[in-house]
Amino acid sequence: MSTPIESETTQVSRYEPFELPETGRLIGFSDAAFSIIITLLVLEIHRPQAAPGHLGAELLAEWASYAAYAVAFIYVGVIWLNHHYMIDRICKIDPSFNWINLGIVGTTALIPFSTGVLADAFREGDLADQKAAALLYALIAAMMSAAWIPAFRYLYRHPELMKPHLPRTVFVAQVLRPVIGIGLYAIAAALGWFVHPLLAVAIFVAVVALYAWTSQGIHAGR
Amino acid sequence: MSTPIESETTQVSRYEPFELPETGRLIGFSDAAFSIIITLLVLEIHRPQAAPGHLGAELLAEWASYAAYAVAFIYVGVIWLNHHYMIDRICKIDPSFNWINLGIVGTTALIPFSTGVLADAFREGDLADQKAAALLYALIAAMMSAAWIPAFRYLYRHPELMKPHLPRTVFVAQVLRPVIGIGLYAIAAALGWFVHPLLAVAIFVAVVALYAWTSQGIHAGR
Amino acid sequence: MSTPIESETTQVSRYEPFELPETGRLIGFSDAAFSIIITLLVLEIHRPQAAPGHLGAELLAEWASYAAYAVAFIYVGVIWLNHHYMIDRICKIDPSFNWINLGIVGTTALIPFSTGVLADAFREGDLADQKAAALLYALIAAMMSAAWIPAFRYLYRHPELMKPHLPRTVFVAQVLRPVIGIGLYAIAAALGWFVHPLLAVAIFVAVVALYAWTSQGIHAGR
Amino acid sequence: MSTPIESETTQVSRYEPFELPETGRLIGFSDAAFSIIITLLVLEIHRPQAAPGHLGAELLAEWASYAAYAVAFIYVGVIWLNHHYMIDRICKIDPSFNWINLGIVGTTALIPFSTGVLADAFREGDLADQKAAALLYALIAAMMSAAWIPAFRYLYRHPELMKPHLPRTVFVAQVLRPVIGIGLYAIAAALGWFVHPLLAVAIFVAVVALYAWTSQGIHAGR
Repeated sequence: MSTPIESETTQVSRYEPFELPETGRLIGFSDAAFSIIITLLVLEIHRPQAAPGHLGAELLAEWASYAAYAVAFIYVGVIWLNHHYMIDRICKIDPSFNWINLGIVGTTALIPFSTGVLADAFREGDLADQKAAALLYALIAAMMSAAWIPAFRYLYRHPELMKPHLPRTVFVAQVLRPVIGIGLYAIAAALGWFVHPLLAVAIFVAVVALYAWTSQGIHAGR
Repeated sequence: MSTPIESETTQVSRYEPFELPETGRLIGFSDAAFSIIITLLVLEIHRPQAAPGHLGAELLAEWASYAAYAVAFIYVGVIWLNHHYMIDRICKIDPSFNWINLGIVGTTALIPFSTGVLADAFREGDLADQKAAALLYALIAAMMSAAWIPAFRYLYRHPELMKPHLPRTVFVAQVLRPVIGIGLYAIAAALGWFVHPLLAVAIFVAVVALYAWTSQGIHAGR
Repeated sequence: MSTPIESETTQVSRYEPFELPETGRLIGFSDAAFSIIITLLVLEIHRPQAAPGHLGAELLAEWASYAAYAVAFIYVGVIWLNHHYMIDRICKIDPSFNWINLGIVGTTALIPFSTGVLADAFREGDLADQKAAALLYALIAAMMSAAWIPAFRYLYRHPELMKPHLPRTVFVAQVLRPVIGIGLYAIAAALGWFVHPLLAVAIFVAVVALYAWTSQGIHAGR
Repeated sequence: MSTPIESETTQVSRYEPFELPETGRLIGFSDAAFSIIITLLVLEIHRPQAAPGHLGAELLAEWASYAAYAVAFIYVGVIWLNHHYMIDRICKIDPSFNWINLGIVGTTALIPFSTGVLADAFREGDLADQKAAALLYALIAAMMSAAWIPAFRYLYRHPELMKPHLPRTVFVAQVLRPVIGIGLYAIAAALGWFVHPLLAVAIFVAVVALYAWTSQGIHAGR
């Protein structure tokens, strides 16, 4: 800002969109979306319509809603941390990457739906309903995991989007996580359908724990 | 920040609102709104109130909801990308442009409503209901497209809002897109009403695809 | 950034919160809140639960919902523009002003409630219900207007929060707008209760138009 | 940006995520979440389903909803101010602190649920329901307070996250506030269960007032 020439250079680099790192709006849009998803989860906690005098018992009977909220909240939290981790390593965005990011946001936005259906099935449904709900959850969760694979692949083929000094292989290990997740969701769907839906739910919780654990691990081991 | 004079200059350019590019708040407001719209769509996915044992069948019967969610999600995604594209080329905002932008956001916010009515009509309504819902959708979608025309016109007449080095004709081609969209929505309304509402739905999907396609095309061909 | 000393100075001014203009978070918080309020309005549009074959007629019967949405959307838009206008002239925030700002956001957040009650009363209620709903709306709208008065008063007594070069009288004229608004809402409440609620509604629309008009006027006449 | 060396330095400090203060995204995410929570509260205001002619009486009967909205709104406002205060003193974020922050956001997001259950119990439930609702509220509010303790502890053990010139003891006094809050919520739960739920509600309101008061006090006494 000390000489006119420098000032003009700064101005061009600020006003010329075609050269600019554009992560700002992608971050603003995604952060707002993740915040909304994580906050809408609380609307999925079933509010008891108890007959007078039975609210306490009804609230205790809602334990499946509370557990579902806690797990889904942690899940979206992990996804936000992963998104944070990925975007931190990017300095430019192109239209294709914006579409890939919309895929991540759009599948994540389904969590309140799949979580709500699952919690409802364990509160009100029979075994067949629980199987169907577990299958739906596994399918949506696998789609959520799958949405990350094109992101890592695209960045590998477009290292110009990544920050300097970063090897293009930085996300190669990361891609393992959604792949393992999809595999576990497939196993959960099969066990839930052919054996018992609670097995599927156990795996759903385990995958969130695994994602949470490896999210930390990758940060810690950098 | 090294000399008093420079410091004061910086301060003026930072603190004096009348000279300042003000895209920041317009972007923050619009991004939050688009995020909320795109996330509220998931609330429109019909949650089955199935009798015990029938959840699986009910979930399959909701295919219209899922398709509507996917199309509407892509639609809002395209609108966000278009908004991104337009604002990237602007460096100042005046009150009139803020109003125009509110028109874009306010019509986009109607998507969950028109999409929900359309999906409901195909799940529960008869042919007359589907015709009415298709007409409503076409009307709202045409309003959404129309809201972009004043933006392009205003920028053409106020090149001082646009970033330097950009020709004032930069949005002339863009204005074709909403005009074509309105035409197609008019055709959809007529075909949906006089022939069959599914024809209208096919055109609705085609317009989203067209918007998505040309959004990319304009970026790619720059 | 060219010498160590300068760099350190910059760092201090960036990391030391007690001296810093802090409008950033107030803006981020308020913009997100206004975006959510404006988008939640669409949830207030009554979705007809029509018997098969009657969707078209039911949609036409919802005209009060559509008009209420349009007016409320413009109202929140005006409030956002006013907020934009005020914060643009501020460079520092203190805790008291944060509380005042929460009052503005918290009363604005009631618009979907009062608008929904009013639209419901005109769709389903009788004359007594419409009077009660108009009274509620007038009360909440007067509170919304009143929330701005402490903001202008506080800034007048704390010119150190305002940007340099701005006279402390900059908001003196602005304070007239909420005062006039409160007066008109009082008249609307009286006419709506003692004469006819439609008179109140006419004044509600007129105040939004007046606010929209003067918002522009103040910007234009600066 | 005038010499290659300077330019590279700037670029490294801007593009290298491992060294960078990362409060930006944490702030964006948290502000959006608090905005949504505070705005969703209005959805908890019970909309009367009055028979024609009874809307006025029904609206007056909803006083518990209005009071609950006001208190909860102020509560979230205080939490936002506290969050603002804490993050203002931080310049770096690590993954552990992101998790701690998610705990704060995730427990705060439960306010609309616990507030809604409490207001419902006082409108429609009997004494046993009110006791159960007060217990739930006390439990969730204690969790909300508890979520802040690890934040202060972690910052004490990781002064490298805090802004320079700040003593590591800056949050030692702050940790008293959630501890006192938890104690008061325990007393409220006991009094509400064994004596009368209205005593619990009185303490709930008092804690919000205390939090609001000390939030100001700490700012004022710096």
